[in-house]
Amino acid sequence: MNIVVGVDIGGTKTKVGLVTKEGDCLKDTWFRTREYPDFDQYLDKLVEAIKILVNEYPEDLNVLGVGIGAPNASSRNGTIENASNLKWKGSVPILKKMRKRFEVPMKLMNDASVAALGEMLFGNAKGMKDFIVVTLGTGFGAGIVANGQLIDGYDGFAGELGHVDMTLGDGRLTGLGVKGGLEAYVSATGLKRTILYMMSMYMDESRFRSIAYSDLHGEDITRAAEEGDPIALKAFDYTADILAKALANFTAFSQPEAFFLLGGLIGSGKWITEPLKKYFEDYLLEVYKGKVKLMYSGMKGKTAAICGAAALIWEDHQ
Amino acid sequence: MNIVVGVDIGGTKTKVGLVTKEGDCLKDTWFRTREYPDFDQYLDKLVEAIKILVNEYPEDLNVLGVGIGAPNASSRNGTIENASNLKWKGSVPILKKMRKRFEVPMKLMNDASVAALGEMLFGNAKGMKDFIVVTLGTGFGAGIVANGQLIDGYDGFAGELGHVDMTLGDGRLTGLGVKGGLEAYVSATGLKRTILYMMSMYMDESRFRSIAYSDLHGEDITRAAEEGDPIALKAFDYTADILAKALANFTAFSQPEAFFLLGGLIGSGKWITEPLKKYFEDYLLEVYKGKVKLMYSGMKGKTAAICGAAALIWEDHQ
Repeated sequence: MNIVVGVDIGGTKTKVGLVTKEGDCLKDTWFRTREYPDFDQYLDKLVEAIKILVNEYPEDLNVLGVGIGAPNASSRNGTIENASNLKWKGSVPILKKMRKRFEVPMKLMNDASVAALGEMLFGNAKGMKDFIVVTLGTGFGAGIVANGQLIDGYDGFAGELGHVDMTLGDGRLTGLGVKGGLEAYVSATGLKRTILYMMSMYMDESRFRSIAYSDLHGEDITRAAEEGDPIALKAFDYTADILAKALANFTAFSQPEAFFLLGGLIGSGKWITEPLKKYFEDYLLEVYKGKVKLMYSGMKGKTAAICGAAALIWEDHQ
Repeated sequence: MNIVVGVDIGGTKTKVGLVTKEGDCLKDTWFRTREYPDFDQYLDKLVEAIKILVNEYPEDLNVLGVGIGAPNASSRNGTIENASNLKWKGSVPILKKMRKRFEVPMKLMNDASVAALGEMLFGNAKGMKDFIVVTLGTGFGAGIVANGQLIDGYDGFAGELGHVDMTLGDGRLTGLGVKGGLEAYVSATGLKRTILYMMSMYMDESRFRSIAYSDLHGEDITRAAEEGDPIALKAFDYTADILAKALANFTAFSQPEAFFLLGGLIGSGKWITEPLKKYFEDYLLEVYKGKVKLMYSGMKGKTAAICGAAALIWEDHQ
């Protein structure tokens, strides 16, 4: 049976899985990325994990290739560059080093683009030629598809939409030092910052008055909204408003047919999505109104990133 | 000899020309768009102009097709929709009607995308796969190329970057009612608005204190800057700063190799381009610094739009 190995390199875990042409993950495994601060030892571990998965599978497998998704990956250079959530510093030539260890076709791409590719091949974007996947986790990531192709940019760093300045330079700082950058508002972290902001602006009573910032988690904010906490409700409304403006801006760029929203912030459910839908239609230019869908991912939770990475190879075998 | 007819439909003039495979315009003509408020009469005039050009040319010509660039054109629908600078209201099915009058292949695309295509086939973007053409005239237009293809969007309205909100909704109104929209700042009109703003903010002496807004022209502002007028200098600096932020934002989207800048505002020369270059490098994310060029168009002035429109057909004959 033909199979593709999908690898998702995250700051905490590295996930590996065997993915069929239909996008099913037959078997998967993982190990802790942080336990291998030496990059060569990390790759040895990764190749070992792949080999064990393939060799121990009860059927004979023909590995068509390995697809790898990673933060700050350049598909053009085959490198991971200055990833703030990974231990390896500078530019890491992962494809070159992997090819010395394992002789099958290999491809690398940044994780948000991989999510978009997975959605197109296996998820809810099947048949769509123009869409954007937005991941709202610790940060704000985006994978952009236009004309049925991923937009990767001149050397593979397209889609850094979390660092778009929404305020003419007069706003919150992102982790990369962009003043007014989107991710400082619209992300799990941004929502926490907005809780502080709302408590500074309004004197409403709130459970958050007695919780320190470092003890604050996204789920607490969702629970507080369910209990009617006015600060939580204001924070969700404010976040949805800015996300709606951002998506309306992105629409003016590539006019996608749909946005797919994923990540922890979207896990808050209606508290973010209901105001988002309302504001989004309001902010769209007339020529776009009623034409752009806000959708959820069709990828299965735990192995979504593995299947997306495998799509890098499967797209050449369609 | 094989030839393509390029048509540029503008608010004032309609330009028609015969364009060779090399992008040379052998002969061109024009008529006033506004003299034909009836759309069928307009098309009759357009077809007549094309036929006269072709028939009166001294050599035998084989017309491969007609490429048409127009404001608010949808390539997918073959229509011009609600163009604010044209007399024809609603959605005008130009391709369908043209095909009844003239039996050759025809294509339609919005004027900024056509400019990008022209730059790619005949201008300074030859060989580039990722670039953005920005036209800074009365408004702010953009034609975006990624992976060597124009980004046209779900139904042909990608690239409306003049209506991206740069201010979280707390700024100037564009003509389409977008609060904080880019074109309200960065365009020939935006520059004039900034002259007023600077006179409201500062008490510097300026020639503009005795000129009414409606009498103000872009060239006057350039001349004033050359004479050291402090209001003109502040206005250019402010405009360049916002344009730099916008281009840095767009870079985060599709990571182009280059921006091509054209239009009246760029005609102001160093007053806009020198501060722009400085601010732009400052605003770029680290991962993009030193990789994105700011360039000028390589298309010859008067017939640039005609040759761009012809590229719509020539791109199928490469």
